[in-house]
Formats: sequence, structure tokens, C-alpha cells
Amino acid sequence: MKSLITKTLVQIALEEDIGSGDITTKALVDPDLCGKATIIAKQELVIAGLEMVNSVYQALSPNNQFIPNCQDGDTITTGQMVCEIKGSLCSLLEGERTALNFLQRMSGIATQTRRYVNLLNRKKPLLVDTRKTLPGWRRLEKIAVRIGGAMNHRMGLYDGVLIKDNHIMVSGGIGPAIACIRQKVSHLTKIEIEVENFDQLEQALAAKVDVIMLDNMTINDIHLAVQKINGQALVEVSGGITLEHIQKIADTGVDIISIGALTHSAQAVDLSMQIEQDS
Amino acid sequence: MKSLITKTLVQIALEEDIGSGDITTKALVDPDLCGKATIIAKQELVIAGLEMVNSVYQALSPNNQFIPNCQDGDTITTGQMVCEIKGSLCSLLEGERTALNFLQRMSGIATQTRRYVNLLNRKKPLLVDTRKTLPGWRRLEKIAVRIGGAMNHRMGLYDGVLIKDNHIMVSGGIGPAIACIRQKVSHLTKIEIEVENFDQLEQALAAKVDVIMLDNMTINDIHLAVQKINGQALVEVSGGITLEHIQKIADTGVDIISIGALTHSAQAVDLSMQIEQDS
Amino acid sequence: MKSLITKTLVQIALEEDIGSGDITTKALVDPDLCGKATIIAKQELVIAGLEMVNSVYQALSPNNQFIPNCQDGDTITTGQMVCEIKGSLCSLLEGERTALNFLQRMSGIATQTRRYVNLLNRKKPLLVDTRKTLPGWRRLEKIAVRIGGAMNHRMGLYDGVLIKDNHIMVSGGIGPAIACIRQKVSHLTKIEIEVENFDQLEQALAAKVDVIMLDNMTINDIHLAVQKINGQALVEVSGGITLEHIQKIADTGVDIISIGALTHSAQAVDLSMQIEQDS
Amino acid sequence: MKSLITKTLVQIALEEDIGSGDITTKALVDPDLCGKATIIAKQELVIAGLEMVNSVYQALSPNNQFIPNCQDGDTITTGQMVCEIKGSLCSLLEGERTALNFLQRMSGIATQTRRYVNLLNRKKPLLVDTRKTLPGWRRLEKIAVRIGGAMNHRMGLYDGVLIKDNHIMVSGGIGPAIACIRQKVSHLTKIEIEVENFDQLEQALAAKVDVIMLDNMTINDIHLAVQKINGQALVEVSGGITLEHIQKIADTGVDIISIGALTHSAQAVDLSMQIEQDS
Amino acid sequence: MKSLITKTLVQIALEEDIGSGDITTKALVDPDLCGKATIIAKQELVIAGLEMVNSVYQALSPNNQFIPNCQDGDTITTGQMVCEIKGSLCSLLEGERTALNFLQRMSGIATQTRRYVNLLNRKKPLLVDTRKTLPGWRRLEKIAVRIGGAMNHRMGLYDGVLIKDNHIMVSGGIGPAIACIRQKVSHLTKIEIEVENFDQLEQALAAKVDVIMLDNMTINDIHLAVQKINGQALVEVSGGITLEHIQKIADTGVDIISIGALTHSAQAVDLSMQIEQDS
Amino acid sequence: MKSLITKTLVQIALEEDIGSGDITTKALVDPDLCGKATIIAKQELVIAGLEMVNSVYQALSPNNQFIPNCQDGDTITTGQMVCEIKGSLCSLLEGERTALNFLQRMSGIATQTRRYVNLLNRKKPLLVDTRKTLPGWRRLEKIAVRIGGAMNHRMGLYDGVLIKDNHIMVSGGIGPAIACIRQKVSHLTKIEIEVENFDQLEQALAAKVDVIMLDNMTINDIHLAVQKINGQALVEVSGGITLEHIQKIADTGVDIISIGALTHSAQAVDLSMQIEQDS
Repeated sequence: MKSLITKTLVQIALEEDIGSGDITTKALVDPDLCGKATIIAKQELVIAGLEMVNSVYQALSPNNQFIPNCQDGDTITTGQMVCEIKGSLCSLLEGERTALNFLQRMSGIATQTRRYVNLLNRKKPLLVDTRKTLPGWRRLEKIAVRIGGAMNHRMGLYDGVLIKDNHIMVSGGIGPAIACIRQKVSHLTKIEIEVENFDQLEQALAAKVDVIMLDNMTINDIHLAVQKINGQALVEVSGGITLEHIQKIADTGVDIISIGALTHSAQAVDLSMQIEQDS
Repeated sequence: MKSLITKTLVQIALEEDIGSGDITTKALVDPDLCGKATIIAKQELVIAGLEMVNSVYQALSPNNQFIPNCQDGDTITTGQMVCEIKGSLCSLLEGERTALNFLQRMSGIATQTRRYVNLLNRKKPLLVDTRKTLPGWRRLEKIAVRIGGAMNHRMGLYDGVLIKDNHIMVSGGIGPAIACIRQKVSHLTKIEIEVENFDQLEQALAAKVDVIMLDNMTINDIHLAVQKINGQALVEVSGGITLEHIQKIADTGVDIISIGALTHSAQAVDLSMQIEQDS
Repeated sequence: MKSLITKTLVQIALEEDIGSGDITTKALVDPDLCGKATIIAKQELVIAGLEMVNSVYQALSPNNQFIPNCQDGDTITTGQMVCEIKGSLCSLLEGERTALNFLQRMSGIATQTRRYVNLLNRKKPLLVDTRKTLPGWRRLEKIAVRIGGAMNHRMGLYDGVLIKDNHIMVSGGIGPAIACIRQKVSHLTKIEIEVENFDQLEQALAAKVDVIMLDNMTINDIHLAVQKINGQALVEVSGGITLEHIQKIADTGVDIISIGALTHSAQAVDLSMQIEQDS
Repeated sequence: MKSLITKTLVQIALEEDIGSGDITTKALVDPDLCGKATIIAKQELVIAGLEMVNSVYQALSPNNQFIPNCQDGDTITTGQMVCEIKGSLCSLLEGERTALNFLQRMSGIATQTRRYVNLLNRKKPLLVDTRKTLPGWRRLEKIAVRIGGAMNHRMGLYDGVLIKDNHIMVSGGIGPAIACIRQKVSHLTKIEIEVENFDQLEQALAAKVDVIMLDNMTINDIHLAVQKINGQALVEVSGGITLEHIQKIADTGVDIISIGALTHSAQAVDLSMQIEQDS
Repeated sequence: MKSLITKTLVQIALEEDIGSGDITTKALVDPDLCGKATIIAKQELVIAGLEMVNSVYQALSPNNQFIPNCQDGDTITTGQMVCEIKGSLCSLLEGERTALNFLQRMSGIATQTRRYVNLLNRKKPLLVDTRKTLPGWRRLEKIAVRIGGAMNHRMGLYDGVLIKDNHIMVSGGIGPAIACIRQKVSHLTKIEIEVENFDQLEQALAAKVDVIMLDNMTINDIHLAVQKINGQALVEVSGGITLEHIQKIADTGVDIISIGALTHSAQAVDLSMQIEQDS
Repeated sequence: MKSLITKTLVQIALEEDIGSGDITTKALVDPDLCGKATIIAKQELVIAGLEMVNSVYQALSPNNQFIPNCQDGDTITTGQMVCEIKGSLCSLLEGERTALNFLQRMSGIATQTRRYVNLLNRKKPLLVDTRKTLPGWRRLEKIAVRIGGAMNHRMGLYDGVLIKDNHIMVSGGIGPAIACIRQKVSHLTKIEIEVENFDQLEQALAAKVDVIMLDNMTINDIHLAVQKINGQALVEVSGGITLEHIQKIADTGVDIISIGALTHSAQAVDLSMQIEQDS
């Protein structure tokens, strides 16, 4: 299913760019002319979001034809052709920027993610994203992360439990918080708690939590925490992870590393569209 | 007017994060508890998007109260308080990530823009943005650019004429394209054309175009072009402008520099929210 | 957050009932008259959905005032007053049926659920609902179930894994299915599988699944299954559970009983609204 | 026309069930696999809502193919096949519950309605529904009632006049109310009034009302009322009609019996979907 | 209830006029300035649509204050003040044209309608409108007609039966058409049929139709038809009614005259807004 | 792109006319019957809005087939066929009024516009429209004006600068207003100012404004103004232009005449639809 929210985003995007009409194209281009658009990579990148290019051009005209030349997740080199769209020249021109804006953001996230994934290049720890995504873009950015090779943490507040300091405070401590929530959430949901020190960690273990998130700990403390937990819970590390020291964190034996930078610091990759008129 | 599109974006953002409910907060936090949230800068930044924080919390509950501690455009230093929100503890927790996601993106763009603006620190050339914005975010990103101190190029395809190579091709050349479009667009709209070489530039001048965009030219060629144009049209430079060589481009005497990186390469700034329960 | 979907449902409901106007009320009732509406129970019931009554009347006029006389989950006896609404007489008349329709359905589900809950009257097994809810009403019906005293199974296909026969078939068996999905879903999600016989049950246990759903088994087989599983996984029973034999199923020692009838066979309870004009 | 409201309901239904994705199916089922789904009756029932099954699967993928094996209104016996859907295996799995939820509710209403219709099995009195429908479902439930063999009372407050006690009270009596409204509503609309006793009935007749609704009267009083009215107005009986005594009410000679239970007490019928992969 | 459709129309109207921002006002007017707007009649007119002015300004800012100086339906003379709005100067300027466009159209229809109503100045025949309204404006235009003093024909195809030539053709004649539809529509709906000659008229009478529409007949034929019908049905005349000969048609004794020109030929009345800054 | 707003307008239009169903057609016409609808001109007119007819019928059924017999902008004589639609008889009947309502309004504007255009019959001055359009109809009415042969002034407040008296007042005069706005709007936007006398005109010229609008001046003053301006700015005349004296205004040498009457006083043209059943 092309979800309601994603479909709405394509409509909003076209409306905000084209609005009352592309006054340049409308004035100069005969609506009966046809043409071909080609999207080309201008840097090495991991492509993600091909379906959005198709959606944009389908929304502009059901007669537009999308021909991919690669698949989401493929590594594309500079100069390589990503896909073609055939259709009315007017609609090719009108959709150019919107299609590229979608593709450049999603590929930017996939490319950024792949860099982290390649650095570790092993099964454990898992790399996962966070909820630091752009409003309106949660689903698309999480898809791009998966295309890049990492996994998704919870999609939102609705599909995963993560107990933070404020929750602990109002619940009368870690033990009571975990006991309370176990009786209220679905039997399909594991319970994760964020701990800041070893005292909290031990309380969490005593309450038989499923996942422990170590928040902004030093490498040494992470190492120590993994030893203490010793398989009684999954161990997630979060907070300020960079490309530079991720290897060291991985070596501590944690199960999961969550990285906000996969989405919040991804930059658009460089792609361009060449349009030519059918002869 | 809080525009239809922006209001829709807040609703989409809350729906995608909270959806069927914040299962952690719903289980642990008494809905009658009240509290206070404080947003703190964790780096030096230019703040932008305070109104979006307010919108998010108003959408969650009309009883939430937003108290700004600075204004859009202010430079905030590490550790400085940006604003407070008072209201139900549940809604403070539920809106935290969405509010921060809006504020971090908009402030990221304003901060990035301010860097370019400060580098030049003079009236001319104008720095302007492009249409390389995130789908759904056009209006918000353009606002953030203005807050950062630069100006906006056209909002979309509907409010400004920019003739590109494909338009020229189907119009039988630069002269015919400009002549044709002058008869079709509003008398309030100037006409801009993108040129790639001096031959095109001379045709554009001959057709009495209003603005000439020099696309990806060398510093030397830009300099030469400015001399040739000599005030007969406004001169815009575009394409691959970086912080490093923007000063040199400015020295050529161009009127306008458009920079895609203001938006497409901006990264989220670091802000955090501290929430405490009313005692 | 009053979610986007719920808010839309109130608007749709008012539009479908009032549409181009309540022609009777518009013709006969002076728009300046004020009055009071009282909702009265005409049977014993568990009340659920008070907030929807408020939402309906707020949507009709922000000046309408909602005064509850009880709380969601309370048992109400015949003749007891549930709540009052004060406001313009016209809006009280226009919203009557819509408000009651919401309240009667939600209270119907809560009342039905309470019947099952009271029958067991003990902590284990948990009673949970299913996805057999009315399109457009998923969130409201799941809330009503909780108000009635049972728990929610997954909200939808997005927040819980349940492997069924078709999934097993295309995955090459139970073991491969569980192994595959463990690598693809969030580390916060437990994995549940539906089994129809003991051979499947043993494969599921071997693959260390988190939850096993016994589908349409006899009491004897359920009993046997619980013994075999012996705490290695949670045990859920599903399919054709009625008030009559739920006690026997509970006695087998299962952890969870899921009951579609909580929602799909709930009937509207009998509530009426009395409206009087202010003297 | 597939109405705006109905189309919105299908989108809401899919969004609320699938949301950010069917995590089980996405993980286990190859998106290129095709299959066939078959809907089977698990009880005797009157089928209604086939078009909604089609709408759900069209919304999931325009390539899905819907093949009905019967028509709305047909009586289906246990085990009989209702329809098939051919298409991608993923979309068949994702739409299963939503399609069944629509079909089970609509067929539940049609089946319930048919029971009442069959009991009378004659032209007069007409059986009609009420406005006691589920918010968001008014049009669909009224369609299901027609499929079941009864007729629709007014769709909403906008397309029929029904004067109730509160309207009478603020109008200064039955006579003035009828006189007033006749001058304000369209010449195409008949006027119906609800009466509770014979005094009111005579006033209504004197004012030449078109339809008289006898509200919660005894069989004897209904009989007497029909004699008094004697063809001067249509006679409708409403309130607490059950399968048990409907025959007696019919024998009094009334023209119309309105039955809230057709919709508010209908239960979902039992239907299941079998899905198989194309070999 | 401010209906869903009307509320949507205000949002669309503001979006289409203001869109990404009022660039003139934003550049020149301090957002903290306050002021007052006054709407003045520049011709004699019947005012209609005051509530829409309020809606527009409420949508722009909840702090705007609307102060009417007359009521819908009042006759306003040249130079008379219609209403004031107090609030932020920016929002007064931004809403000016949208508010006036609503008010000028609705008052144009009310003024046009009043002209017809005054011409007859008696209770019978009723003047009614048609469905020849502007798409999106049905409800507003029908309200304006009532404000002008005429009545509404059916709101749409959903709330009134009107059998036209094509319906007759496929039904095997007038008699069968009327007999068939009587069994299918609600008992609250009268049946109207359009006839073009006396043969059809007699068939309609024989079938005991409720309302007969005489389509484009001469005055003589209308006169004759009224005599033939002689109270057995209501008589409506439609088609090409003008201010010039409406008196003659009225004299024939018909019950209802429907006039498309009330809406399809109404012109905007002349109103202006004066805005001044608070001193 | 069929814009979001236009698509929404078609849906609203069908919903407001058909709503819960065309009760006449549903009762009398077999849904399997097919037919042909023909739109015929009943007066001489300029046709505009053919695409909207197509949109309406596509929204009713994707199987409907639209066959135009002319092009937007063509002059059609009385009795001439405009277009045909083939499809299900029911949908032809259901869409008749909505399709005609769109076409009659748009053609009314185009016909009105053509009258003004023909009167001048020369290249200069340009005739342009205003923002006096019907809420919800801005884009459609501006398209109809272009089809009629005139040009569009700005689409809304967002795509053109027009400084009016209130803007001047709060800016400290004409010179400061123009100087201020030049620094704030896009370099692609010309600046227009409205002047009421020669003193203001000279200040505007001194500030090097791009376009001067002469508001409600006499022919003599317009003539004098054109001489004073003498090519230093474009000259627009606005306010109370009628067919009678437009020729004289044109003779003064102004560049642009803006005419609100093109839209606000256009009346629907007379078109009818004939529907016949396939034999």
C-alpha cells in the first residue's frame, strides 16, 4: 500500500512547487511535445527512493512511463544513469525538481547509512536509526535507512516501549516502572529502558527488562555494562555515535547501536536530470 | 495565516510519531500531572522555527502554554535556554521529538545560512536560496533562510520565470524564447535566463532580458560576464558555490549568488528538551 | 493527542448526519435559545466514550459545555444520568444522534468486554481483543476494550508480528520463518506464531519463538500444549471463544485468550438523551 | 459515484490496519509472488458489500483483480465461495482483515434485515431503518439495509422532516409547528411528526400532517390509532420492535415499521479468507 | 455546524489568495500593528454572508474581532457601513479580498433574489432556486437565496425526486416510472415529474404524482394546465423565467416558480473595505 | 498537473450535488445501461472548461469517455455541439448538472472577456483580470480569462507586489515604501504602486517604481499621467472600466487595463445536455 501519508506528501510537494502553474514551461513548451528525462549520478552514492520518482511522475500524468536502470540499495558511480522517465515534455520539466528532491534526500540517507554499515561489516552489533527524522518524512527516512543496510528502531511512540528518565521519575523508580508497564502493554512488545549509571542498570536487570539502553556512557563503562548484563537483556548504546569511534563501541560487545546521524545529519546527494525532446 | 500546507504538516508529523498512542507514557504517566519542558541549545546556533514548537504543542492541547526566551534569528550559545512549554506532563513527553525535529531542521538551515551571510558581510551580492528543499518543507525552509539572513529566490515554478536550456531548445533560441514569454507572463514578473557561454549571454542581452544566470562558470568568466553585461541586466551566479570560494565570486561584482547548500546540505543543530514534573 | 483519524471520524459523522442542515430544527428552533441535554442509561452498562460526546458537541459549537457525571469504565444502572451538555438548543438537537451513536457503540463494547472479564475475575490468563474491528473504528474500539477491562492485542499489522499459515508456507517452514523474521524486525518486537498441531508447536519451540498461538484447538489439546510449552513461550488461545467455555480454557493454564467477539459481536447499549429548553 | 466519504473510509481503514507497514508480511513474503484469495461463508448469510472488497484491493494495488461469485443480496450457505481476488500475495495478505471487516459488517446488517423481512413476507407495512448507525458508516449501513430487503428512512437530518417533542415544545404546540415548517421546507418534502398519545394525534391530523409516527405505543393503542387516522396520513410505528412481536404490529394495519435493531444490533457474520500462492 | 465543505472552502480560498504569503504586506507592515477594517456598501443591496467574513478573519487569526452593523437580509444603502473587523493590520490586509469576494457573491444573489420576490410581493406562488449553482458553492448560494426571501428547491440529487424525460424513457412511460419510484424512495419524499405536454400531464395525474413541473410552456398552456390539474398536484413552472414576465406566470395560479437566474445570473454587488491603522 | 485544489473542487462539487445518491436515477435507471450525452450551445459563446467536463465524468467512472468537438477558446454558435460523453447512463445523468455548472461559468467568463478583447482588437494596452474571483475558483477563472484572450494580473498576494494606500501610510510615504520593499522581495518581482494623484505619481517615478497603477482617474488625468510617466514605468489603469468607455482609456496610451468585471460580473452562458440511451 502506498500509504495515505506518503501519497499526501507527494501531492503537497507538487502543489508547493508548481502551485498555480509552471509559468515558464506553460509559456514556452507545446503541451503536445514528448520527451525523455534521464537521472544521472554526479557522485558515488547508494540509490534510494526510485518509487518516489515514479509516484511524482504518475501524479503529474498517468501516461508518464518510469524505467528504472537500477534498484534501491545499489551503489551508483559518478555519471551512471539511474532511471529514465518518458512522457510529455511539460510534465518532465514540471516534475524535475520535486522528483530530484525526493531522490536526493532518500539516497543521501541510504548513502550515509551504508558508510556506517560498511565500517562495521559484521552481523553484530545491529545499527539502527532513531526518531530524529524530518516531520512528514518518518516513513520515507526509515525506508531509506533499511535500503542503506541498517535496521529500524521503533517507528514511533506507538510501536515500542522505551522508558526514559521522566517516566522513571513519575513511576517511583525503575522497578515499579517496569512492573507497571508490563501489565499494560501488549504481550508482543518488549520493554526497553534507558539507564545512565550502574545503579540504574542493576535495578533494570532485577526487574527483568528486555532491552537496556546505555545513554551517553564512556567506552569503558559500556564495556563494563556489557559484562554485568551478560546476556540477561539486549544491550543498546545510544548518543553521539560518530563514524570515528563506532568501531570501538562495537568491540565492547553491545547488541545494538542507535545512530541519530543516519537521518538528522544526512545531506542530499548530487543527482541531476537531463531532459531531451523526442525528435 | 498559518497556511493549509503547514498546518497539515504538523498534523502529519504528530500522527506519524504518536499514531495510535505513546504506549510508554500512556502506561506510566498520570494524565492529570503537569510539568514544564525547557529547550536548551547544545551548540552555538541561530534559532529558527519557534512558532512550530508552539504549533505542535497547541495541536496536542490548547491548554499548553508556550513561553519563548528568544526570537527567531537570535544567536544562541551552548547551554542557553530557548523556550519553555508548560502543560500536561503527558503532552510534553508526547510532543518532545516532533517539536525538536521541527526546530532542529529550521535552526540548522538558519545557522548554515548565517555562516554564508557573515562571510560576505556586505549588501551586495545578495545571497539567495534555491528550490532544492525537502518535499513538504518548501515554505518552512524558505522562512528559515530569511531568518538566517539571506533572501529567497522564487518560491516555486509559479512565481518567477527562469528559462533553462530545455526551454531555449524548444523555443528556437534565446531571442525567440524571451520574446515569446514576455507576451505571456504577468507584467509584474521579470524574466531570468540561464546562460552557459558568452554567445548565449549576448543573445540574452540583445533580447533585453531582466536577469541573467551564469551557470557553473569559472571565476574569470564570471568576471568577464559582469563587465559585458555592465548593468543592462541583473547578474546571478549559481552552481556549486561553497563557503571557500564565495568571497571570490562576490568580488566579481555579481548581483546575486544562489546557493542550494543553504537548504540541501544543512544539518540538524543540536538541541535538547528537559522535562520536569510540577512539584 | 486527539488523533487525526479520530478527529476526521467526528467530522465525517456530523457531515453524514447533518449535511446541508437539520431542516426540522432550522425551521422550528430559534438559534438564540439555550438548553440542556441529559444522557440517561436505559439498561445496566459499562460506560465508554464520554470524550467522543464532548468532541461531537465541541465540533458543533465551541460554546457547548460538557459535564460528565461518571467516568469511562464505571458501571451505570438503568435510569442513571451519564452526563449533561449545556449550550444552544439547536446544536443540542443536531448532535443528539451522532453523540449517542458514538457512545452506544463504545459502551456496547466495554459492556461486552466486562462480561468476559468478570467471568474470569483473575489475573491470568489475559483477555485481549483482535483486529476484527469496524473499518475506521480501530482506535476507538480498542480503547473501549481497555475501558471494559481487557487488554489490546496488536493495533494493526504494523506493531506486532504474527506468523500465520501463509507466511509459513512461503518461508519454507516454521523454523526458517522465525529465523528470517528475527533478522528483519525491530529488536523491540516479540515474535508470535500460529500453530495448528503439535508438530508445528515443536518446530516453533525449537526456533525459540516468543509467543505461540493455538488456533482452534480442543480443550484437551490446549491443555497438552501448555504442558509441552512449559513456560518456554507465552501461550495464546484464539478462535471461537464464547462466554460458555472460556472458563474451561482459562483452566488449561494459557497466558492469553484473544476474543474477536469483544468487538465484532458487541451490540449498541441503550442510552437516550433528554433535551430541555432553558426557562 | 464512489462518494468522497466512502472513499475516505477505505483509506482510513487501510491506514489504521497497515499504517507504517505489515511487518510480518514485509519480512517473509517476496513482493513478486502472486496468489489467489477466496472468501468463504462460514454460516448461512445474506451477502452485502462486495464492492467494498473490491475497493480495498484496488486501493492496495490497481493490478489486483476481483472476481465475484455471487451478487449483493444473495443468500449464501455455509462453505459457499463468495468471491476471489487475484494479485500480489503481499497485498492479498495485507488487505485480508480490512476487506473481511467491511464485508462481515455489511453482510451482518443485510442478514439481520432479511430475517425481519422474511418474517412479514408481504408488501405492507414497509420495514425501514433508523439513524442509529455507526458514525462514518451511515451510507454503507443504509445500503446494506436495502440489500437485505428493507427500505431506508431519511439518510440524515437534511433530507426529511421529523418533528419530535422538543420541536413541538418550542413551537407552541403541534398545530403551530406543522404550520410553521410547511412554509419553510421544500415543496418536495413530506412532514412527519412523532406523537405519544391520542390528543397529540388529533392535533396532528387537524394540521394535515403527512406522516404520523406512533412512539412506543401498545399494540392496542396502535390499532386504535390506525383506525382514527383512517388514511388521512401515513402511519409509522417506532420503538423497541423485536422479531417476536413485529407480526402483531404489522397486523394493526400500520404503513411503516422503523427498526433501529437492523443496524444497531446487527452482528458481524462469519466469513473467512483462504489465501494460496500461485504454483 | 459550520459544515465540513464550507470550512474547506474558506481554507481553499485563503490558500489560493495568500499561498506562500502576502509579499507586499509582509515586507511593509509591522506584524505588531493593529487596526480596523470597515466594509461599506457602494450600491443599494441586500446583504448576505456576514458569517463568511467572520470565518475568513477567524481563520487568519483567532484574535480578530468581527462586529456586524446589520443582519443578513437587511437592505443596505450606498455608503452604509456593513461591519467592522478589528485585529492585526497584517491580517486585515491579507483577508480583504477573500472576505469581500465571499460577501459580494452572496449579497449579489440575495439582491437578485429580492428583486424577484418584491415583484410578486405575495404568498403564492413560491419562488424557488435550482441546482444551477457554482461548483463548491451549493450550500452558500442556497443560503443566500433564502436570505433574499425565496425558498430552496432540492439541495441536490439526494434529497428530492424529479423525474425527467430520460428517466421516463428508460422506465417505459410516465405511469410506470411513478409507480416504480414510489416503491423505492423514502416515504418522506414527494415525487415530482417534468412534463412537456398535456398528454404527459394527464398520465402524471393518473399516476397520482405529488408535483408536476411544466417545462418551458407558454403562458396560455400554463393557464390551461393549472385548470386541468385543479389541485390534484402542486404545479411548478420552470425554464427561462425573467423579471419581465414573471408576473404573468404568477397570475396563472401556479404554486411554484423555479428560477435558475437567482444564482446563475447573479452578479457581485459593489462593496469596499477601508482599513485604518490604530493610532 | 491537475492541481490539488482543482481536484478537490471537483470532488466537493460532486459530493454537494450527489451526496448520498441520486435517488431518482438510482430508482429508475438500470446501472448496466449505456448512453451518450451531448452538450449543445443555446447561445453564441466562447467555450472554456472542456477539461472540467472530462474531470467530472472521470471522477464518476473511469470508463466514461469524453469526446470534445471543439477546443477551449473556440467561438460556438447556437445549436452547435460542444462535446460528447459516452458511458453508463446513470453516471451521465448524475454528472449532468455539475459538468454544466463548471462549463457554463468558465465559458461565461471567456465570453465576457472576448467581448472586451474584441472591442480593442490591438496589441496594446493589455487587458488583464483582477483578484475579484469566486473563492475556490481563482485558478479556474484565471484560466478562463486567458482562454477568452486577455492576460492574468497576479494570481494572488504571493506572486506580485502591489503597494496600496494602507501600505504607503504605514511605510512613511511612497519613496520609503518602494525603497523598503525592493530590499525584501525576490529579484524576479517588479514593483507596482497604486497612485491617486499627480503628487503621488511623481514620488513613485522618483523612486523608480516598475509599474504605476492609476486608480479611478478621469480620462483627462490618465492622458496627462501617461505623458508625465513617458515610458519610465509601465502604466496600468484600474477601477470601474466598462465596455462603453474602454476605447477612450485605451487611446490615452496606457500599457495595461485591469477589469474586475471579466470575472465578478460574468454570467453563466446557456448550454444544455441531451442524453440518450444506447439502442
